[in-house]
Amino acid sequence: MFFEGSEKKATLTIDPTKISLLTDFTDDFWQQLVEQCQAKILSRIKNQYCTAYLLSESSLFVWDDHFVILTCGETSLINAIEFFIQQVNPQDIVQLIFQRKNEYFAHAQPSSFLDDIKILQQHFRGRAARFGALDSHHNYLYHLDTVPAPGLSQASYELLAYQISPHASSILCKQGLDSSQVRQFLRLEQLLPGFTLDDFVFEPYGYSLNAIDGTKYLTIHITPQENSSYVSVETNLNLLTMTPLLLEILQPASFDLIAFNEPEFNALNRHYIPGYYLSKELVESTLSSNELVSFANYIRPTQTVSQPHKIDISGHSCTI
Amino acid sequence: MFFEGSEKKATLTIDPTKISLLTDFTDDFWQQLVEQCQAKILSRIKNQYCTAYLLSESSLFVWDDHFVILTCGETSLINAIEFFIQQVNPQDIVQLIFQRKNEYFAHAQPSSFLDDIKILQQHFRGRAARFGALDSHHNYLYHLDTVPAPGLSQASYELLAYQISPHASSILCKQGLDSSQVRQFLRLEQLLPGFTLDDFVFEPYGYSLNAIDGTKYLTIHITPQENSSYVSVETNLNLLTMTPLLLEILQPASFDLIAFNEPEFNALNRHYIPGYYLSKELVESTLSSNELVSFANYIRPTQTVSQPHKIDISGHSCTI
Repeated sequence: MFFEGSEKKATLTIDPTKISLLTDFTDDFWQQLVEQCQAKILSRIKNQYCTAYLLSESSLFVWDDHFVILTCGETSLINAIEFFIQQVNPQDIVQLIFQRKNEYFAHAQPSSFLDDIKILQQHFRGRAARFGALDSHHNYLYHLDTVPAPGLSQASYELLAYQISPHASSILCKQGLDSSQVRQFLRLEQLLPGFTLDDFVFEPYGYSLNAIDGTKYLTIHITPQENSSYVSVETNLNLLTMTPLLLEILQPASFDLIAFNEPEFNALNRHYIPGYYLSKELVESTLSSNELVSFANYIRPTQTVSQPHKIDISGHSCTI
Repeated sequence: MFFEGSEKKATLTIDPTKISLLTDFTDDFWQQLVEQCQAKILSRIKNQYCTAYLLSESSLFVWDDHFVILTCGETSLINAIEFFIQQVNPQDIVQLIFQRKNEYFAHAQPSSFLDDIKILQQHFRGRAARFGALDSHHNYLYHLDTVPAPGLSQASYELLAYQISPHASSILCKQGLDSSQVRQFLRLEQLLPGFTLDDFVFEPYGYSLNAIDGTKYLTIHITPQENSSYVSVETNLNLLTMTPLLLEILQPASFDLIAFNEPEFNALNRHYIPGYYLSKELVESTLSSNELVSFANYIRPTQTVSQPHKIDISGHSCTI
């Protein structure tokens, strides 16, 4: 069975003198919002700065002045964003960054990036760009054509890992897997000391984690099936310094790194990425809001001959 | 404007004691066949072994015992194949190989590979496999689950080049470009001495070439637009020995090589591929018909920082 792990992601920042996301909106409101994209809230953790919702398809993090939502599978995140826009005065929205990664199986998606941003352009004046080559890993990004504002200079990071090692796949696909085993495999105690954790092991496969500590957050989503495996890590901790450990655990055949507002992106990658991964592409841009966006794609070249992936077409359920 | 250059391809081999493709079928028949996938015949060249049709979307080559058809854009090649199957006794079909490359923009395609092979499975017992990783360049291949037969051991080759150099793009996108300029740029006299050529320069962009000499053929299809450029070369000449010249002319950022029945695939590539291209993936398989299929993907790593590709969303025509 194939599952589209690649997420759509939205980061929406509001004017905190007009709206307080933590006090003006209830759990019911966020439940209603995620239902717009065919997801639901599975559980919640919170502290005074952040409420983190674990979703049936990925995650939602709410701080007082911004929220981050990621949804995977065949969800229509754009519907949830439009729902939010309709509940507030659009002028109180300081920034909206809407991202879509290249999907494994774009044909099955309910909409394309272009379809989505046509909806956003009905409400805003924005710009869009593609980070990464069209025939390779890439990340579509839409943002408001806006000026620098408080709250837009914070750093955040994404690691998108493809084709994790067969060993990692087999552990994460094990029957009867429980979350303590995944936490141990991912060495979460070492990566996230002191964080409050909330995680879920999906049937038949899949794992999601939300972690918060003060204003810091980290979220992991794993689609472990061999041949279409995908792991995403998103955080406002400095993820680039954590890549050696994560790459050692997951051993992906290729991965992307995306950073917002990290001026040391290239220097840190040169320092931390193991030498057997090669930089295939490196894209940087400063948005009109002065936010710096960096994208890098790394691959591990091989001379080894492999077998093709057999596609089962004998029954009714085809896999690609 | 974006055009999907990636082709669907079918190679269909018949029992030559039952059917003669060159004498049993007329030009009108092939015209009708290509119309099934929303293409039409633009021109034709022929010799005693082969008739080569240049299509509005790629090419069709007909020999006495087999034909090869490639169609690009948003064509439904599967409809043309099903049309052929319905005109003959399916038992006279010795082999059918149906391929689809990963598309730039799969979302816009009228069908997926799985949709297509479900139609083929209504007529045949076949097998399918994916050559290349799901998150990278890959080639889906369907073939009949058949035994070795005469006519199935011939070698053929494909070079699929992505993101040709800005220089090559600009030359091939020049206003008023004529075919003699393209022939010169591609050094066709050097590559194809003595061949009969038939080519077409499309508006606003694009170039197709059919070339035949005895039983030998070569076809080139070029989508030259920067950011989504794609060039395919398909032939039964030994293309692997021609790659140094083709790579020098096109300078793609990445390319795939596919060969049928070439036991020296790896050795030839090690000899002929310039060292600044790295092998990202290498996949080989011998089909039940004893046909050997080889796939390799090469990339040119970079440490250079580039700008994202801006997406024009100001008007009605969006580009990705």
